[in-house]
Amino acid sequence: MWPDTAIIRLFGTAVPIVQAPMAGEPDRAELTAAVSNAGGLGSAGVAYLQPDAIRERIHAIRALTQRPFGVNLFAPVTSDMSPAKIARARELLAPLRTAYGLDDMPAVTTMPDFEAQLAVVLEEKPAVLSFTFGCPTPEQIRRVRAAGIVAVGSATTVPEAQALEAAGVNAVVAQGTEAGAHRGSFLAPFDDGLIGLMALVPAMVDRMKIPVIAAGGIMDGRGIAAALMLGATGVQLGTAFLVSEESGASASWKNAILELDSDHTRVTPIYSGRPARGIQNTMMEILSPFAEELPGFPAMNSLTRAIRVAAAKGGDPDGQSLWAGQAAPLARAMPAGDLLRILSEETGRRLDEGFRG
Amino acid sequence: MWPDTAIIRLFGTAVPIVQAPMAGEPDRAELTAAVSNAGGLGSAGVAYLQPDAIRERIHAIRALTQRPFGVNLFAPVTSDMSPAKIARARELLAPLRTAYGLDDMPAVTTMPDFEAQLAVVLEEKPAVLSFTFGCPTPEQIRRVRAAGIVAVGSATTVPEAQALEAAGVNAVVAQGTEAGAHRGSFLAPFDDGLIGLMALVPAMVDRMKIPVIAAGGIMDGRGIAAALMLGATGVQLGTAFLVSEESGASASWKNAILELDSDHTRVTPIYSGRPARGIQNTMMEILSPFAEELPGFPAMNSLTRAIRVAAAKGGDPDGQSLWAGQAAPLARAMPAGDLLRILSEETGRRLDEGFRG
Repeated sequence: MWPDTAIIRLFGTAVPIVQAPMAGEPDRAELTAAVSNAGGLGSAGVAYLQPDAIRERIHAIRALTQRPFGVNLFAPVTSDMSPAKIARARELLAPLRTAYGLDDMPAVTTMPDFEAQLAVVLEEKPAVLSFTFGCPTPEQIRRVRAAGIVAVGSATTVPEAQALEAAGVNAVVAQGTEAGAHRGSFLAPFDDGLIGLMALVPAMVDRMKIPVIAAGGIMDGRGIAAALMLGATGVQLGTAFLVSEESGASASWKNAILELDSDHTRVTPIYSGRPARGIQNTMMEILSPFAEELPGFPAMNSLTRAIRVAAAKGGDPDGQSLWAGQAAPLARAMPAGDLLRILSEETGRRLDEGFRG
Repeated sequence: MWPDTAIIRLFGTAVPIVQAPMAGEPDRAELTAAVSNAGGLGSAGVAYLQPDAIRERIHAIRALTQRPFGVNLFAPVTSDMSPAKIARARELLAPLRTAYGLDDMPAVTTMPDFEAQLAVVLEEKPAVLSFTFGCPTPEQIRRVRAAGIVAVGSATTVPEAQALEAAGVNAVVAQGTEAGAHRGSFLAPFDDGLIGLMALVPAMVDRMKIPVIAAGGIMDGRGIAAALMLGATGVQLGTAFLVSEESGASASWKNAILELDSDHTRVTPIYSGRPARGIQNTMMEILSPFAEELPGFPAMNSLTRAIRVAAAKGGDPDGQSLWAGQAAPLARAMPAGDLLRILSEETGRRLDEGFRG
């Protein structure tokens, strides 16, 4: 039933549906394995994990599935993490920290070493390694592919996709403005990388030789069929799987998504220092006016962590980063494997309906 | 070949493809008639015209086609047009005016009277009357429908679409963030009405009884087929027709679109006082930092008019409002009727390919 099987052949899956890597709370071995066992490509968002923890996570997934799955890392980024900005952030966060009963000084942590993370992935050899936030070097991508791992990049504009193709990736994820969580922009200013999939996918397909995977706002068979019509050969869904049973997202985060009647998201850098799309809440309202004064990623991510954890524990959506895409109102809560099967069935039906006229 | 014929039956056209109304230079009777004669719904963007000129325009179209066509008006808006803001705008525009050899004081004009415009349309009875920028009163919509005219509203969010449906329109245009020119947002803040079609169309379709027409980023059969998969029963294309032979857009504006390799647009209020999407140019760069200090629509529109006209005359894209959608790189220059026929053929082929899989 799939018009183009490029992604199926590349990933070795039954269907070209990818569960988006969701680094942080939602990411659990059970979620990755459930999607892969149902015939899609489950993903492990391990970017925040140290190399040893990545190895453990891959082993945990392998204990649950024999099928192909993907691992996702963040390409290293540089950003303004000056002491003055960090001090200003601490000052702005103080009232929120008090409100959540936190009284220690929040620490600034850095990301795990990318080369050390990569080394573990090269040893463990998952079927797929995807990158976001940038373009690894051609040498790094060569090593990935030499290990028999499929390399996938993520782009928000045509020039970014072209840069990834030139660096040697096997496929590229087209991240539309609709997508939840962090923006993958790395060449364009973030404001220029907010392109709707309807415009982004065909423009990218026309200028690329490698397959394009559409991501952003896809929640059901209608969206998958639409992405295929645009020329994508695969799709990647985050929010749709974020609310599934196996996802580790807090109950209050899942509920915030499931209760939406219409889009209520914005792109903001206030939680992590890097622009990301989430549901509007009190923390976003309080800090957004000061966005320009805050430090970059990952400083802001570590500075807000204790607040986000306390809010999640307390079942309070107003202090969490409620990442969600613009199509969150279409989310359906169920086991991830069931969702994967329903998505495939819906897509087939939808393509038939289009033909029958 | 069309999966759902709701829009075809409503408009009385051969295909559910609408040429978006493009008030200003692009709008010409020849363009409207060419699209209608080819089986689509041509539109006349007459919002800036006085009632008598609207009547003349409708007569001119009728001299060129017997087929159904649409007329579009702007619902009345209120905005901040205080003397202080107008003075500030004159100050900021002064260097640009000098550069374009303009030395008179730019005047502030108001929009034609909406009720007087409406009265002419009710007398002339085009097949369709569409509105943007807001929701007319239920009484106004009742009069439109009582005259045998199909009433169409434009929405950027689900609540806006629901408000239009409640007010009595026959169909609603879902304006995705991808769309070129003015944003139609009227309930949500403009920043909350920038939703990709992939997310907006299915969310709207699920909550509406009336048909949804998808607009934004649609340029070829791939986009049309995708919109149909999402649940839209019609599509509206602006940028695709803006570059066509019969469009009155300046040659330099058309060229700016045809030369694009990737999206290079932004949403800005600096040209008219109301947020609108256009290709980035020098005028946008110069004025965008002062966007908050400028008066609203239509004051800013009249204050910048002489500059835009002079730039268009001089073949200079940097002083024009280069309205274009995010999929502008996919634009193809040809006669509008040829494009309409190609779009229909491409859509049928694309739907077949999806099925053949």
